[in-house]
Amino acid sequence: MARPKNDTFLRALLREPVEYTPVWLMRQAGRYLPEYCETRKRAGSFLKLCKTPALACEVTLQPLARFDLDAAILFSDILTVPDAMGLGLYFADGEGPRFERPLREEWAIRDLEAPDPNDHLRYVMDAVTEIRRALGNSVPLIGFSGSPYTLACYMVEGGGSSDYRTIKTMLYDRPDLLHRILSVNARAVTAYLNAQIEAGAQAVMIFDSWGGSLSHAAYREFSLAYLEQVVAGLKRNHDGERIPSIVFTKGGGQWLEAIAAIGCDAVGLDWTTDIGEARRRVGGKVALQGNMDPMSLFAAPEAVAAEACRIVETYGRGTGHVFNLGHGINQFTPPASVSALVDAVHRHSRGLAG
Amino acid sequence: MARPKNDTFLRALLREPVEYTPVWLMRQAGRYLPEYCETRKRAGSFLKLCKTPALACEVTLQPLARFDLDAAILFSDILTVPDAMGLGLYFADGEGPRFERPLREEWAIRDLEAPDPNDHLRYVMDAVTEIRRALGNSVPLIGFSGSPYTLACYMVEGGGSSDYRTIKTMLYDRPDLLHRILSVNARAVTAYLNAQIEAGAQAVMIFDSWGGSLSHAAYREFSLAYLEQVVAGLKRNHDGERIPSIVFTKGGGQWLEAIAAIGCDAVGLDWTTDIGEARRRVGGKVALQGNMDPMSLFAAPEAVAAEACRIVETYGRGTGHVFNLGHGINQFTPPASVSALVDAVHRHSRGLAG
Repeated sequence: MARPKNDTFLRALLREPVEYTPVWLMRQAGRYLPEYCETRKRAGSFLKLCKTPALACEVTLQPLARFDLDAAILFSDILTVPDAMGLGLYFADGEGPRFERPLREEWAIRDLEAPDPNDHLRYVMDAVTEIRRALGNSVPLIGFSGSPYTLACYMVEGGGSSDYRTIKTMLYDRPDLLHRILSVNARAVTAYLNAQIEAGAQAVMIFDSWGGSLSHAAYREFSLAYLEQVVAGLKRNHDGERIPSIVFTKGGGQWLEAIAAIGCDAVGLDWTTDIGEARRRVGGKVALQGNMDPMSLFAAPEAVAAEACRIVETYGRGTGHVFNLGHGINQFTPPASVSALVDAVHRHSRGLAG
Repeated sequence: MARPKNDTFLRALLREPVEYTPVWLMRQAGRYLPEYCETRKRAGSFLKLCKTPALACEVTLQPLARFDLDAAILFSDILTVPDAMGLGLYFADGEGPRFERPLREEWAIRDLEAPDPNDHLRYVMDAVTEIRRALGNSVPLIGFSGSPYTLACYMVEGGGSSDYRTIKTMLYDRPDLLHRILSVNARAVTAYLNAQIEAGAQAVMIFDSWGGSLSHAAYREFSLAYLEQVVAGLKRNHDGERIPSIVFTKGGGQWLEAIAAIGCDAVGLDWTTDIGEARRRVGGKVALQGNMDPMSLFAAPEAVAAEACRIVETYGRGTGHVFNLGHGINQFTPPASVSALVDAVHRHSRGLAG
């Protein structure tokens, strides 16, 4: 199967020439869109929405109908893998994801196994296939997974955490147990992403949302080492096309050189990093994705456009930049801000990118 | 007045020779100590504890009675200054600090004035005087304040925030209004810290707890520029002694060189930065304070000691290191971990520091 008609996103990731800077937004199919809320309501629950391929496909396409985005991203949850491992994912009202059976006992950790992605995670692969069919030849589809460490955070804490006390106690007291979890997670994530690639994902992104909570030394040992294992195990090509990979550690700006060295094609940046300096630091080794502050979208459209242009200029001339926010879009964002952003990036980067 | 008998902390900040690495902990007088909880209960409320010099003095001294710490820090709240500005600080049950009158209207921002620290903040100066008297000639007393930007976050948001939506909307939409607040805050913080120095504080620390939530560009314009104004306005000497200043932007590891250049004597680091690399980056320009992960204190005492020794070694030989956590100590920390930490730092650094 050939590259999609608009393959700007894939070319920027592979640092091939582009006519303008491609743009997509983390969590672009989300609650800031009324049509998403409508579909979610119809689904009955967030998990039902994730687990019903036709509905996941519907919401994946919604932002593309509104905005001139250069990529679609699979609609799914970051915790599908531990759910498939049997931890019992559920969503408490207004509390975010939780697990019925957090992973804390030594026997449970010894018993942990990587799930077969084509069995318990079949619904994700079906969604990928259905979205690819619906997208036709328009824009590429991004598959994704949580990182081994980020999944472990949720698995051990049993949900979100503000201080990661439980997993960090394990990290400092019983590093052997945490390494065991991370090793299973790395195998599970690799198989999961490869199954998505086989089902039709044209690029993959690994979200290391909580790696940034680790100390400099612990990040290398407990997050980056396993990200490297995953990247090394990814299918590099499918159907004759290169499948680029993006690694994003939120809060990982200080560790950029180390992340850029693990073999991925692109590194995601949050808004605390200067993208121009980041480009000099990685020295053409990887493409960069980011990095506008999601909160800047609450300003007036002209201010949104100005901030987007500032970031495009800070990156500077040439390919290798995929425009994005530095984190998922906030649920209260006015959709008009997204139009202003996308148009500003496309307009301002023509002549600069290339 | 001469330097205290144990002036290791002051010497390390000024990069003068020391026999060992001095240590104190952010929030060392806090809820992890049963005696603190007892005094707080007796005070009736947290604000009453802050505003009663005898009680503030009592809790300031508590950790020094238990542990071999090299400095005391004034017990107070970060939000005393906006409270003195008339915003009405209160503590909702289990919700952290809030303001009755958040600062959002243009007229209120135009009317904002820096308070006279010797009037509405007299209770803080009285506490400083009383603590100095109680400390005698033992260890130095640190005074502190929130940074202009961190205070503005609380003032505009009306309390803590997970996304800083209100202040960031102001930042991107009406930067003129935010600059007006920050300019008043910078004058207020300078006067407040100078009053603490005159009352007896022997070093001062500025906590920029929320500067790390800003983009690279916004940090320079809205936080660092005002930190620089404050540092430039601080009394450098009092009673014939140098008064060192410490600036700590949590999450500011990427901006270390810029922070080290504003004229402060020391820079605080959170645990995401490698303190050895940080030392090379600042090239002897400033001392460094930090940077152990507070969550590592939940491990067994031997693991706590090992992690502390690792950080002492990562900093390496010579003076210029004040050992601390990378953030305030958690309220559930076992006090035995603090003993293990302090002893490990003192023991392991003899021979390395100097």
